[in-house]
Amino acid sequence: MHSLEAPQLFAMLAVMLAGAKVMGAIAQKFGQPAVLGELISGLILGRSGLALVDMHHETMEMLMELGVFVLLLAIGLETELPKFFKAGKTSTVVAVAGVVLPFVLGYGACRLLGMVDIASIMAGATLTATSVGITARVLSDLGKLGSEEGQIILGAAVIDDVLGLVILTVVKGMAGGASPTLGSVAWTTAVAFGFLIVVILAGKLLMPWLLRAAGLIEMPGTPTILALILALALAWAADRAGSALILGAFAAGLLLNAVPRAHEIEHGVTVLGHFFVPIFFVGVGASVDLHYLDPRLADGRWALLIGGVLIFVGIFGKLFAGYAPYWFKGRKSIIGVGMIPRGEVGLIFGQMGMTAGIFDESLFAGVTLMVLVTTFLAPPLLKRLVGSHRGGELPDSADGIEDLVMEA
Amino acid sequence: MHSLEAPQLFAMLAVMLAGAKVMGAIAQKFGQPAVLGELISGLILGRSGLALVDMHHETMEMLMELGVFVLLLAIGLETELPKFFKAGKTSTVVAVAGVVLPFVLGYGACRLLGMVDIASIMAGATLTATSVGITARVLSDLGKLGSEEGQIILGAAVIDDVLGLVILTVVKGMAGGASPTLGSVAWTTAVAFGFLIVVILAGKLLMPWLLRAAGLIEMPGTPTILALILALALAWAADRAGSALILGAFAAGLLLNAVPRAHEIEHGVTVLGHFFVPIFFVGVGASVDLHYLDPRLADGRWALLIGGVLIFVGIFGKLFAGYAPYWFKGRKSIIGVGMIPRGEVGLIFGQMGMTAGIFDESLFAGVTLMVLVTTFLAPPLLKRLVGSHRGGELPDSADGIEDLVMEA
Repeated sequence: MHSLEAPQLFAMLAVMLAGAKVMGAIAQKFGQPAVLGELISGLILGRSGLALVDMHHETMEMLMELGVFVLLLAIGLETELPKFFKAGKTSTVVAVAGVVLPFVLGYGACRLLGMVDIASIMAGATLTATSVGITARVLSDLGKLGSEEGQIILGAAVIDDVLGLVILTVVKGMAGGASPTLGSVAWTTAVAFGFLIVVILAGKLLMPWLLRAAGLIEMPGTPTILALILALALAWAADRAGSALILGAFAAGLLLNAVPRAHEIEHGVTVLGHFFVPIFFVGVGASVDLHYLDPRLADGRWALLIGGVLIFVGIFGKLFAGYAPYWFKGRKSIIGVGMIPRGEVGLIFGQMGMTAGIFDESLFAGVTLMVLVTTFLAPPLLKRLVGSHRGGELPDSADGIEDLVMEA
Repeated sequence: MHSLEAPQLFAMLAVMLAGAKVMGAIAQKFGQPAVLGELISGLILGRSGLALVDMHHETMEMLMELGVFVLLLAIGLETELPKFFKAGKTSTVVAVAGVVLPFVLGYGACRLLGMVDIASIMAGATLTATSVGITARVLSDLGKLGSEEGQIILGAAVIDDVLGLVILTVVKGMAGGASPTLGSVAWTTAVAFGFLIVVILAGKLLMPWLLRAAGLIEMPGTPTILALILALALAWAADRAGSALILGAFAAGLLLNAVPRAHEIEHGVTVLGHFFVPIFFVGVGASVDLHYLDPRLADGRWALLIGGVLIFVGIFGKLFAGYAPYWFKGRKSIIGVGMIPRGEVGLIFGQMGMTAGIFDESLFAGVTLMVLVTTFLAPPLLKRLVGSHRGGELPDSADGIEDLVMEA
């Protein structure tokens, strides 16, 4: 870990935010989500490129943790629990199939390639979650957000996120200890689900009381800061309970989604996210060393092979999941393709695998390649399937949080 | 420097923000500015009290640097250059006298106490700047913001801030090198003023071009992030030019004050400030060890002596400055008392003296005591002088930035 002085930090942050803005705008000009531009700006600025940005500092790692934290809080704030429960059988089946198929295929493929158990599980886990932000953005651009297929995809993507978080927690729990057993997997799954359930139930009971207490502190910016305090505390509690920090942030978002001043909180968190979230995405890009994908080296060929296999099972796992609700009369191919982009959640998994020492450089580069390719691929494929390109408006909810992923 | 894990960081941030909010609200209930509550919450949570918060981490120091950065950017955004030049002879005389008198008195007193040159200069410097935020808030609470005395105080407080920044830069420049000579003081003064002038002139020329370029990147949150990029870059440039980071942040604020979307930028910076600025104030409080003021110890008596002397010259230096415009027909005592509270700028100086190794623990504790006492003293004294307590509204500009200092 290198030591950091303030001028160097300021210079790196300036370069990262500028890179994120410029490449994000260019990505959007080409009909791609801004998050892709941010990732690519990280590749350009970091270890793969100009080496202007060095993420190997405690402060940079902590700023990235705060970035994921704000992002998950924002996603939680977006997730309406009642809607979520009403998402229906079709969405649930698509989501579960879309988590199980890529995970099992990814795990199996990695084991066949000779990788160890824990790394194979983590690699499989990176394939599970669909990016809500990217999916919603692409559907909206195609004017398909309100269609039956669009609603199913959105519902499934949200369920996906929660399942992905649970898997992440399970994997993270295993990373700390010995090789996974059925018992340990069951236990960490129970802790993750248990934490979510306890927080939501306790929150429903305590929220009126908390809101009254919060009403005593009436100053500008207060709702957002109180929301941050709750989210930071729950993140810490999730960690203490043996689960993942971000599960706490997400749970706080779920709880705050229904409070009277949720809109104010959402706005404040979004403004904070405009600063913190690009640091995460650019930081992930800057951490990747594309030299590990050099086909002239044995390690590079290995990373390309893993990346290729992950891309293959990542695409077909989600595509088949679209056909899982066999009774559905609409176009199942649209659902399948709509679930393909991995985006931010895949990156969070990859970053965690790296931090936990489960992934080596090759595997991390392979996972990043998978995220890049699946995210690049979905928009043009969807356009082809839908055929006509109609302009569409984002739903109201999207002008707050989702632009963190889509347009920030 | 201790190493830091994410859960510990999250727990500390939760505790700091919660302490800032609760103690800030209590301070306001007692008619005191919120920043005092934040400082005191730092005293409670940090080394002087519960030791729940440990600022001796690279990440915490960097977050504090970002806090000062956001605060100075916000103050710059508040400072209207034309108004600033029109502030008039009276304000200028009050400001210059209010900088020179406390500085000379403080320096002299410290030298008489046997302190070395550089520490005496830094201690004198901490006495120079009046807190714009606290002054404005107190005047508004007394319904005196629009009075002639009020306008003079506000103008002088703003000029104070700029002079204080220049002095800070000079002192910081000297801290890096050998003992100060007239030449080195003149040189660092020239660099600080030169930087401000060059940035403002270059900014006036380049701003239309920059704004056109920025217009190409139209995404939510963009104005604020572009402002941050400019401010981070200028802060870095100021450091490279041999000046202080925060001078660059302040200069960026001055430049952005007049752009078409300044209001949007101000709003975004304020939201970021609600997160970052309390971290700075609580952090300063947490860094102080009040055990160094223990009168049973020789060091404690020494710190109390220094603190007492600084309080004395700090109060009378500013009070006399109120009488400097001898031709003014209004109540000069109100002007003098209105200039007394030191608040955030004194703390920034003290923190820098500590970081640069100029201040030892006793001196740092003494300076913090001075800031606490002068800030506590002004509101009741002003109330006594003005006599009647009329409710007053803050001016429009204050609902954005100034609440960072006053109510955040």
